[in-house]
Amino acid sequence: MAGNSFGKIFTITTFGESHGEAIGGIIDGCPAGLALDFDAIEAEMQRRKPGQSAIVTQRKEPDSVKFLSGIFEGTTTGTPIGFVIENTNQKSNDYSHIKDTYRPSHADFTYDKKYGNRDYRGGGRSSARETACRVVAGAIAKQLLSEIKITAYVSGVGPLQLDKKHQVLQFDTIEDNPVRCPDPEMAVSMENYIKDIRKQGDTVGGVVSCVIKNVPIGLGEPVFDKLHAALGQAMLSINAVKGFEYGSGFSGTKMKGSEHNDVFNPDGSTQTNFSGGVQGGISNGEDIYFNVAFKPVATLMQKQPTITSEGEQVEMQGKGRHDPCVVPRAVPIVEAMAALVLADFWLLNKISKLSSE
Amino acid sequence: MAGNSFGKIFTITTFGESHGEAIGGIIDGCPAGLALDFDAIEAEMQRRKPGQSAIVTQRKEPDSVKFLSGIFEGTTTGTPIGFVIENTNQKSNDYSHIKDTYRPSHADFTYDKKYGNRDYRGGGRSSARETACRVVAGAIAKQLLSEIKITAYVSGVGPLQLDKKHQVLQFDTIEDNPVRCPDPEMAVSMENYIKDIRKQGDTVGGVVSCVIKNVPIGLGEPVFDKLHAALGQAMLSINAVKGFEYGSGFSGTKMKGSEHNDVFNPDGSTQTNFSGGVQGGISNGEDIYFNVAFKPVATLMQKQPTITSEGEQVEMQGKGRHDPCVVPRAVPIVEAMAALVLADFWLLNKISKLSSE
Amino acid sequence: MAGNSFGKIFTITTFGESHGEAIGGIIDGCPAGLALDFDAIEAEMQRRKPGQSAIVTQRKEPDSVKFLSGIFEGTTTGTPIGFVIENTNQKSNDYSHIKDTYRPSHADFTYDKKYGNRDYRGGGRSSARETACRVVAGAIAKQLLSEIKITAYVSGVGPLQLDKKHQVLQFDTIEDNPVRCPDPEMAVSMENYIKDIRKQGDTVGGVVSCVIKNVPIGLGEPVFDKLHAALGQAMLSINAVKGFEYGSGFSGTKMKGSEHNDVFNPDGSTQTNFSGGVQGGISNGEDIYFNVAFKPVATLMQKQPTITSEGEQVEMQGKGRHDPCVVPRAVPIVEAMAALVLADFWLLNKISKLSSE
Amino acid sequence: MAGNSFGKIFTITTFGESHGEAIGGIIDGCPAGLALDFDAIEAEMQRRKPGQSAIVTQRKEPDSVKFLSGIFEGTTTGTPIGFVIENTNQKSNDYSHIKDTYRPSHADFTYDKKYGNRDYRGGGRSSARETACRVVAGAIAKQLLSEIKITAYVSGVGPLQLDKKHQVLQFDTIEDNPVRCPDPEMAVSMENYIKDIRKQGDTVGGVVSCVIKNVPIGLGEPVFDKLHAALGQAMLSINAVKGFEYGSGFSGTKMKGSEHNDVFNPDGSTQTNFSGGVQGGISNGEDIYFNVAFKPVATLMQKQPTITSEGEQVEMQGKGRHDPCVVPRAVPIVEAMAALVLADFWLLNKISKLSSE
Repeated sequence: MAGNSFGKIFTITTFGESHGEAIGGIIDGCPAGLALDFDAIEAEMQRRKPGQSAIVTQRKEPDSVKFLSGIFEGTTTGTPIGFVIENTNQKSNDYSHIKDTYRPSHADFTYDKKYGNRDYRGGGRSSARETACRVVAGAIAKQLLSEIKITAYVSGVGPLQLDKKHQVLQFDTIEDNPVRCPDPEMAVSMENYIKDIRKQGDTVGGVVSCVIKNVPIGLGEPVFDKLHAALGQAMLSINAVKGFEYGSGFSGTKMKGSEHNDVFNPDGSTQTNFSGGVQGGISNGEDIYFNVAFKPVATLMQKQPTITSEGEQVEMQGKGRHDPCVVPRAVPIVEAMAALVLADFWLLNKISKLSSE
Repeated sequence: MAGNSFGKIFTITTFGESHGEAIGGIIDGCPAGLALDFDAIEAEMQRRKPGQSAIVTQRKEPDSVKFLSGIFEGTTTGTPIGFVIENTNQKSNDYSHIKDTYRPSHADFTYDKKYGNRDYRGGGRSSARETACRVVAGAIAKQLLSEIKITAYVSGVGPLQLDKKHQVLQFDTIEDNPVRCPDPEMAVSMENYIKDIRKQGDTVGGVVSCVIKNVPIGLGEPVFDKLHAALGQAMLSINAVKGFEYGSGFSGTKMKGSEHNDVFNPDGSTQTNFSGGVQGGISNGEDIYFNVAFKPVATLMQKQPTITSEGEQVEMQGKGRHDPCVVPRAVPIVEAMAALVLADFWLLNKISKLSSE
Repeated sequence: MAGNSFGKIFTITTFGESHGEAIGGIIDGCPAGLALDFDAIEAEMQRRKPGQSAIVTQRKEPDSVKFLSGIFEGTTTGTPIGFVIENTNQKSNDYSHIKDTYRPSHADFTYDKKYGNRDYRGGGRSSARETACRVVAGAIAKQLLSEIKITAYVSGVGPLQLDKKHQVLQFDTIEDNPVRCPDPEMAVSMENYIKDIRKQGDTVGGVVSCVIKNVPIGLGEPVFDKLHAALGQAMLSINAVKGFEYGSGFSGTKMKGSEHNDVFNPDGSTQTNFSGGVQGGISNGEDIYFNVAFKPVATLMQKQPTITSEGEQVEMQGKGRHDPCVVPRAVPIVEAMAALVLADFWLLNKISKLSSE
Repeated sequence: MAGNSFGKIFTITTFGESHGEAIGGIIDGCPAGLALDFDAIEAEMQRRKPGQSAIVTQRKEPDSVKFLSGIFEGTTTGTPIGFVIENTNQKSNDYSHIKDTYRPSHADFTYDKKYGNRDYRGGGRSSARETACRVVAGAIAKQLLSEIKITAYVSGVGPLQLDKKHQVLQFDTIEDNPVRCPDPEMAVSMENYIKDIRKQGDTVGGVVSCVIKNVPIGLGEPVFDKLHAALGQAMLSINAVKGFEYGSGFSGTKMKGSEHNDVFNPDGSTQTNFSGGVQGGISNGEDIYFNVAFKPVATLMQKQPTITSEGEQVEMQGKGRHDPCVVPRAVPIVEAMAALVLADFWLLNKISKLSSE
């Protein structure tokens, strides 16, 4: 398969460029009989869409999803769920200045070389607009996994790093601030930092963390499709992501085994959960938690040197309406991708042993 | 597909438990006409095998691979390459003490719960012994990609972190020291550190870094199968891995866009390569580099509390011969998985545009 | 993967029910750089659509395809090609009489039992309307394979069987008659036969044959994905198909080896081609030819007994506008599925050996 | 994936050439907890192996399977089941005469052209020896599907065609005669016919029919992975198969809808089952039945003209020990492939709707 499908059983295939008529996708493998909450789907779309607050891009995209199949009288039928999201605000003229120019740290150069032919308007297929389709599919996956609770949040913006353990964070405050940081004080600092960056015409990176609670034991298909490996691929497939770590992550590399081993409680839970809820690639029922690194947005409202497709050196400056920091809007995307991974493994796990029939 | 296959075109499917009669695999999709260098394959196996030095496990495993098909007169035929590696040193009696006990931070608990039935001897399928099969397949992938140079090395052992850029490291010294660290001074420190840890009956984590040179432009299949996402999944599927970052990675999250953007040189290369050789999920021809986090080995030569399958609290202590630090032996495994990812995308890229026919 | 995707490299995923707002699909893996002839795509759609002649259903469906992505300035970009076809003529009220009734030899009963929930309007997902999406994808595959010539035609309608070899048929007359039979005399007989059947309110089965010329040597991926096995699956996946045979087919079972073996000419071609252009699952460069059996259309304009979902026995009679014989409209569908199979193997074959790079 | 894997959930990947050291495979996705009956597996191998009777090849191949993983204390563990079958009777010298010669209607020519490099000994990968691996996997699939009864038998040998309905055949006599025909009188005729053909140094084709009873309702994944389409691909992937038809098959094309439609009984069964147990690609609980066409064996014990790889015309004659008619030994292979298809869909169907959890 070419690279626009994700999942083995609960699958999503997406299509669409940022400035085509529409983007969309097909969800195949969603079990029949799931009564959908369309408001909940729309709410996820609203969390991702531009223009929500002063610290994200001011583009106006209604991002309303239209379902075309696979649902009858509000309930999934087991047939593929096709959907489209119109690109109502295409403004293609904004992009003529990049037709022959490769924007630094964008995908213009690589798409051009790989395919020899690209839709240069707004990044085309490489635009993060495509993630709207992931949010649609993820919102349905979340409903399938109603007992599982997936919560992502911003834990880092540039130098500002939230180093508290997730257990002490106020998850119910996440949607109360535009940064989506579950520590109200830090949220204000981050918001001010982003505003400052935007004034400079600059951008900044950040970290999205995610905690998944109530995961059934047994999700994951070793040896290659370990649960954390699939989560890693899912997160790394999101635009601008540079790294993924779960459980003790990179800091665990500095520890000794005698510190790092998770001592069992009699009920099978552990005292420390450095494993991050996954052992041997299979969920153990404890909280899954991981961090996702996002680089600074590449489009700057500053002049920067670059080259044309002919290798000529030119100066360019971003136009239009771009995010100074991508992490607040990435929160629902991280949750969506986590939900897609879990839905796939949740279904597969139902057929992993005979007694589970 | 269940989770024991990797790759879409150049695929490897593995089987085998640590204490069964043999492990092995099938490589399907290797093009016909590749004249194999069997000594080079054996050399990779030697790099991974136990007992190479004083700082790794002293188990004796000859780890000799026997090819059963797909090769005729030394050259691949385009048919599947089946191979087996015998487990000559099974010593199953070593493991009776863990039959009903869940070792902390191992996969005993999760395999038992998921499958309801497991080969408890030495971790069974969850043992890192399985990675020997990956090294076989990776060694063939390396030969397919003869122009590409993949070099992994140890860049961290516990608190000892090599923070030099890869450009200044002495790659030709990697195999000269048992740690596989390309900085001779640091190598000695790391070796001493590991010896010390071993004396304590303890273990320690570490970091393997990898640099890939001479990668053709165009490898990667967005939007889900981005090159770095596939590399991430590949690395995270290796036993004991907790994290993956490429290019600027987690440290890039703290940077501003104006610092992080890679300014192009006229020839399309960049001045900084924070992108890590991948833009928009597609290789851009520059060095690919990434870090892989390994947790401390979970088997300790110390007493530690744990539970039985009945939830009873007991004490246990590792027996047998185990690695105090896994990263030196992980170096060839990281390279092998990188080679498998690249081989897959290298083949796919040949059919990505019409002019490439 | 769930069952709505076809192909490994050149893939099509479809969605849509007969009476939803739209049907559509995503083509992923089409190489970049293919300049599309949209008129040719539209022409294939016209060949499949209802209402073309007096012997097919008189439903009016404009069946115009709208491409939403993957094409820029008329040329494929290597990104997924999303498309939709609106259902302009839904007339859902026609179907209230079958809401709780299982039509004989339709999929109502099995969809209801499998999924517990179905869109009963016009067969929903089980309607042959879905094949319009296959024709779109097949039309693009045909353009990719411009050197290969795929020709399907009607060779049987009920008892009327065309037993001439394809070499003596007048392929240029196929589109001149509503039956799509390349023997003008037989075409008239078949047309009259179908008209007669329609007057009776009855339906009839038939056979579509297909000949593929100029196939490169080497297409097919044994041992499971033999070229003819993939063609067989493709054809059997078309609505109403009951059988597939290629080359000598079922009649070859009655022959002796001494009669059936294809004696080679010095150039590698054969004197008899009972192999049907495929040996060992791989194309040998000779004409591929095969037959596809279609059952009679299940919807009759006669009263027939059936049951409700409660098991109550009732009488029902087809309403609306249905085909008395499906084979004339199946001709472009058979060609489309053949093109999809060939496109997939044509791409795969480019990476089957090193010298083909 | 390259073409040596079959199935999506319950998968088999095979390797091996007829004259290598061993053939084998990996079964991945078999649920844990299946207590295996190894005698039953061996019995299936015995049904397929050469030398069983006077009418099949007299080659001696013990065909004993050695399981290497995935089974612990006789029960599947959910990890991949690796197995090998040694080629004890390689006699490679028998094949030097075909090194540079293309045998008519074999795969020598196409493998040579596709791969540019082949193991010419005994057909190499294209040999039907590979089907031994399918029988192993199929035997395990049969045990997984213990409630389903799959029975294949010979219904045609050359001109001798068994035209009785399967309901009146004596299935308990199938293994009592070397032809595996469930009509004792016809079995004698067929046996004599084959003996006569063998005396002539000739071969003959035939038909294997298969009946599957007690199939749960709901197996099959439309629109592409319809149950009968997957069965068709499975059967067509067996060596020497030229056609597949199910239910009314090709003869159904001559019928009218009013004759062909299966009238429901109140319990959902039908009076005629022309549908062959499958409607809309999904099993309906009635008997599945289908026919598989096998061409005459291509290796003759007669002289026949052919060409060398240089295009030179030469005469050749088969050496060694070959079957005059393949269908008796194909019976267990047809059953094995049917079992593999059903196992896959049986598992998938468990996750097709929410209420099936």
